[in-house]
Amino acid sequence: MQINRRTWLLGSSSLAMAGFLPACTTTPTSLKPVAQTISAGYVQHKLGNARITAVSDGVTKRALDAGFVRNAPLPEVQAALAAAGLPTTHIDVPYTCFVVELDGKRYLLDTGFADNASPQTGLLHTHMRAAGIDPASIDAVILTHMHGDHINGLRRKDGSLVYPRADVFVAQPEFTFWMDDARMNAAPEAARGGFQAVRRVFANYPQDKIKQFVPGRQIAAGISTIAAFGHTPGHTAIAVQSEQKRFTFIGDTAHYPALFVKHPDWQVQFDMNAEQARATRHTLLSRLADEGGLVGGYHFPLPSLGHIHKAGSGFDWQPLT
Amino acid sequence: MQINRRTWLLGSSSLAMAGFLPACTTTPTSLKPVAQTISAGYVQHKLGNARITAVSDGVTKRALDAGFVRNAPLPEVQAALAAAGLPTTHIDVPYTCFVVELDGKRYLLDTGFADNASPQTGLLHTHMRAAGIDPASIDAVILTHMHGDHINGLRRKDGSLVYPRADVFVAQPEFTFWMDDARMNAAPEAARGGFQAVRRVFANYPQDKIKQFVPGRQIAAGISTIAAFGHTPGHTAIAVQSEQKRFTFIGDTAHYPALFVKHPDWQVQFDMNAEQARATRHTLLSRLADEGGLVGGYHFPLPSLGHIHKAGSGFDWQPLT
Repeated sequence: MQINRRTWLLGSSSLAMAGFLPACTTTPTSLKPVAQTISAGYVQHKLGNARITAVSDGVTKRALDAGFVRNAPLPEVQAALAAAGLPTTHIDVPYTCFVVELDGKRYLLDTGFADNASPQTGLLHTHMRAAGIDPASIDAVILTHMHGDHINGLRRKDGSLVYPRADVFVAQPEFTFWMDDARMNAAPEAARGGFQAVRRVFANYPQDKIKQFVPGRQIAAGISTIAAFGHTPGHTAIAVQSEQKRFTFIGDTAHYPALFVKHPDWQVQFDMNAEQARATRHTLLSRLADEGGLVGGYHFPLPSLGHIHKAGSGFDWQPLT
Repeated sequence: MQINRRTWLLGSSSLAMAGFLPACTTTPTSLKPVAQTISAGYVQHKLGNARITAVSDGVTKRALDAGFVRNAPLPEVQAALAAAGLPTTHIDVPYTCFVVELDGKRYLLDTGFADNASPQTGLLHTHMRAAGIDPASIDAVILTHMHGDHINGLRRKDGSLVYPRADVFVAQPEFTFWMDDARMNAAPEAARGGFQAVRRVFANYPQDKIKQFVPGRQIAAGISTIAAFGHTPGHTAIAVQSEQKRFTFIGDTAHYPALFVKHPDWQVQFDMNAEQARATRHTLLSRLADEGGLVGGYHFPLPSLGHIHKAGSGFDWQPLT
């Protein structure tokens, strides 16, 4: 697919919204079946005049220990995994970014690891190309939060920028929290890694490319943000709306779906304010179940796109088929 | 209107949802025009099988000073009031509760002052009776937060309970915050009044009537809660859904509409975490504009029910007519 340069140069989002431009700038002529593209590391879905592509950066294996879910005994966690037909000794943790094409622009939501971690990760660009998306064509990156696995893909190990021409949108309270040196210095040694990962990426990042926003504000017509604090101090979900169709990327609001969608009261060890994260999880999942729109999650296995349904005291995750 | 006792005793919310019970238990045969009932202190609206009644507890006059909006110069605030056709020297602050009738139960959202404040307030029951609602028929009270003007109506000046048979639903983080004696004792003198108001109402409140909930969780079928922290630590909005129709009571997410709906970046002096409140305001108002449902606000003048629309960098409040 080609970005239509004329559309782009005209800054035409309002024209496109008003129907003056052909929808073909961001609408593919056909989509391959979900099952066929998962092995190539991506899944695509049409959403009104937008196209959403879930793109895997890879999967790592994590041994399951008693600390992974803060507030549930290990046997209960293992039972939940078994009930979902999953291994009970470890979790295969996926890292899934999303490319949103809307009104002639390409947005990347979260970034994976680039070449900063194990060879099981850093596969984002390979999978984007398989989906026909040139990584160099990304116009903007939008971050849900600044944990390392969501931001490392902005800068390679050699220090070079991965998306030098893209604006990087990040929630103002998130950026402020992590870039606060006094807070970093006051943090216990074990908690400093997160601050250092942020500095590796953002120290000396071109200032004119960093666009801080108030959570809840629109980033562009059709692209809004949702304050979803708790996992981190400024964690923010991202919603795309086109022709009455809605897609919401929840980031890490619910970490692994078989555990935290099913059991929204469970708190993953990475939830920095666990009680706030729990309230946010209930609130956002309940909303998504009510509205019935398309949902994406970062640590959700491909297709990583699907729907949320209410089920008992929790929710069910229904992946696209 | 009579509560259907049989419906009530059967605990029939799921039956009603499934269509096994006649909708007439909570559906009025007719509603009076909005303009006609405002002078009687209430406004009613049918919402699927539910009925929503905005009921005024009264209005007080507040001199406008430079501190009312934390982060905008007084002349800008006065200009916003003038643009809305309002006086610029003071604000007539309304206190509006809502009665939700659904599946044979009556829920009161926030409580006003009862007889604890000036004679311009405490009018809730007079206005409820004008609307044909017996205050003694309230089955449950749901609180958005525990500031005095929202909770004082639970207990009269003489110590007696106003709704002795009703359950009182309150967000767990809100209750925990205000009932924490160590926190009260550590608060500066000027901030202690809020803690004391909470103790006047809740110290010795029958424990079996207090139902703490995780924000985001449902209270009953069709009645959900939305974490909307910032104005207070556990501030929570309340949503009612019936037959695909939705009503959301935002509490104090946006205080006076001509100021804080129009200018969601403005922070009222009562916002306890002003930046979090700003993010929550953008997020919730944006969502309500997107979904187009009915909205109610506590400090919104009658009819106090209406719709939110996006307008420039903020929102417009469109009251019911």
